[in-house]
Amino acid sequence: MKYLTDEKLTIVGAAGMIGSNMAQIALTQGLTPNICLYDVYEPGLRGVAHEINHCAFDGANVSWTTDPEEAFTGAKYILSSGGAPRKEGMTREDLLRGNCKIAEEFGKNVRKYCPDVKHVVIIFNPADLTGLVVLLHSGIRPECVSTLAALDSTRFQEAIAATVHVPQYKVTDAHTYGGHGEVMAVFGSHVRVDGRPLSEFNISPEQWEEIKRQTVQGGSNIIKLRGRSSFQSPAHHSVRMIAAAMGGDPFTLPAGRYLNSCGYEHVMMAMPTVIDSKGVHFTCPVGTKAENEALHASYEHLCEMRDEIIELGIIPEIKDWHKLNPNL
Amino acid sequence: MKYLTDEKLTIVGAAGMIGSNMAQIALTQGLTPNICLYDVYEPGLRGVAHEINHCAFDGANVSWTTDPEEAFTGAKYILSSGGAPRKEGMTREDLLRGNCKIAEEFGKNVRKYCPDVKHVVIIFNPADLTGLVVLLHSGIRPECVSTLAALDSTRFQEAIAATVHVPQYKVTDAHTYGGHGEVMAVFGSHVRVDGRPLSEFNISPEQWEEIKRQTVQGGSNIIKLRGRSSFQSPAHHSVRMIAAAMGGDPFTLPAGRYLNSCGYEHVMMAMPTVIDSKGVHFTCPVGTKAENEALHASYEHLCEMRDEIIELGIIPEIKDWHKLNPNL
Repeated sequence: MKYLTDEKLTIVGAAGMIGSNMAQIALTQGLTPNICLYDVYEPGLRGVAHEINHCAFDGANVSWTTDPEEAFTGAKYILSSGGAPRKEGMTREDLLRGNCKIAEEFGKNVRKYCPDVKHVVIIFNPADLTGLVVLLHSGIRPECVSTLAALDSTRFQEAIAATVHVPQYKVTDAHTYGGHGEVMAVFGSHVRVDGRPLSEFNISPEQWEEIKRQTVQGGSNIIKLRGRSSFQSPAHHSVRMIAAAMGGDPFTLPAGRYLNSCGYEHVMMAMPTVIDSKGVHFTCPVGTKAENEALHASYEHLCEMRDEIIELGIIPEIKDWHKLNPNL
Repeated sequence: MKYLTDEKLTIVGAAGMIGSNMAQIALTQGLTPNICLYDVYEPGLRGVAHEINHCAFDGANVSWTTDPEEAFTGAKYILSSGGAPRKEGMTREDLLRGNCKIAEEFGKNVRKYCPDVKHVVIIFNPADLTGLVVLLHSGIRPECVSTLAALDSTRFQEAIAATVHVPQYKVTDAHTYGGHGEVMAVFGSHVRVDGRPLSEFNISPEQWEEIKRQTVQGGSNIIKLRGRSSFQSPAHHSVRMIAAAMGGDPFTLPAGRYLNSCGYEHVMMAMPTVIDSKGVHFTCPVGTKAENEALHASYEHLCEMRDEIIELGIIPEIKDWHKLNPNL
């Protein structure tokens, strides 16, 4: 079996549904034989390691550990799904504090054990903030950290395809930008259906609102239907993102990354991006007036959330960021 | 994206953990763009279809249905994980009756809607019996039906590798034959470690018993560790089995199939097999005296189970099998 690289890929949160799927898909797609599964929950982690061993991937060298030093040392690529879900009685702020604390520890582990990591993909929510916290505390370059945002775009693509009755893959350039929460900017003006502009398809305002609703609610809809959060599609895209960083096919769906131009600064959010072996790059989005306003509103919302975690003392004030990460 | 074929693959039990993993892996590996997801549980099925759509596989044409006519019509390949799990208060016989009844309906759907199906992989337990029931009621040729058995062999491989401290892939020809239940035959005499016979590794009788215990208990161990049955590794192997039948890499781990020679008749069980575009073929196993005796004991056990479902009226007496399936 041929692998893209033999460098070490560490999967953080590997005992969970997303992390275990990441491990399976990464080996199925031949990313690297050297995969380290890391989680704090040992029994589940051992169970996942057995499952992966029972797949018997040719040439694979799968290890598992509950020790962060072992997990992060030598890691050149990291996929992280390792956040905590919201539990009963927790406020939104509790969840925010909890997952940002996990992100801080994660970033510090990168700084301590693998400061020369080539790419890190963060997918635990709120990913726009946890990604920022990781970037700050790890000290690595902004193009080395991306966050999962592609699902909003593929949900948008799915909703358009269902509305105009074509196979989903015939809908192209259906992208959303900005935050990965409920305040995102849905960019319809570039969408093509089988090569034709979406505007030729006479979508009514009601249909358009429904498409946007399905895009934003795609994740909660899965929870209702399956009784669990989506785990296959986030694992799928994050593995493709890290494969692109390893030199595989470039990843061209939107990813979240740190911004310092286009009028958007000091946040992580989804933009028109490409991930390749040099990391995650972005260009400024070109949209209609309404799209640009929606993107600005999403940016403002992210700035408010960022300021909230500054006030909570989770990250320092912006003027001091360069002390934590001189690349910012 | 390049697919192995564009013929229709139907996944039965697609709302479940194994079935949904099958769908993801089949598209990840590029088996066919035309995949039909079938299950009786509509909400879960819709949720899985959304997850797969959100992966946005290039060129994919994924449909879902709760209607067996729609699911089976035109299917050239079928993967089935669609059994019922044992619930509280159910006896073993209840489970046997229940899953054999599901297998009977499955076989009848094949006969009615897709009698020219090219290959069917059955993985719901007891697979040696459900596979036999499907074969009888479908009326298709024996080489067109295989059952999942490979996990016993990869668990055997894993246990040997852990004992002699080598990467798992360096252990070759670690196979088990016979039934997929607790009475299986573990064939150690062909095993090689990094090209050397296992006999050179001085495994103690206690270590050997522990290897066999881990092989047989590999599945229940995962339930203890993960709190759920294994689902990634069964999906992985069954997708590789059907890929082989589509003309992909031949599948050379043991599979269960219907036997009518080598001294083993009128059962389905694992043998040295190869699955390729012509179906599943077997050769008679060559073992030590102890291995052959273990295989015969496993066969006897399967014959008893087969006779039990004959007595329960689930399948007819052997002398009447040819009336149901003239290929037997």
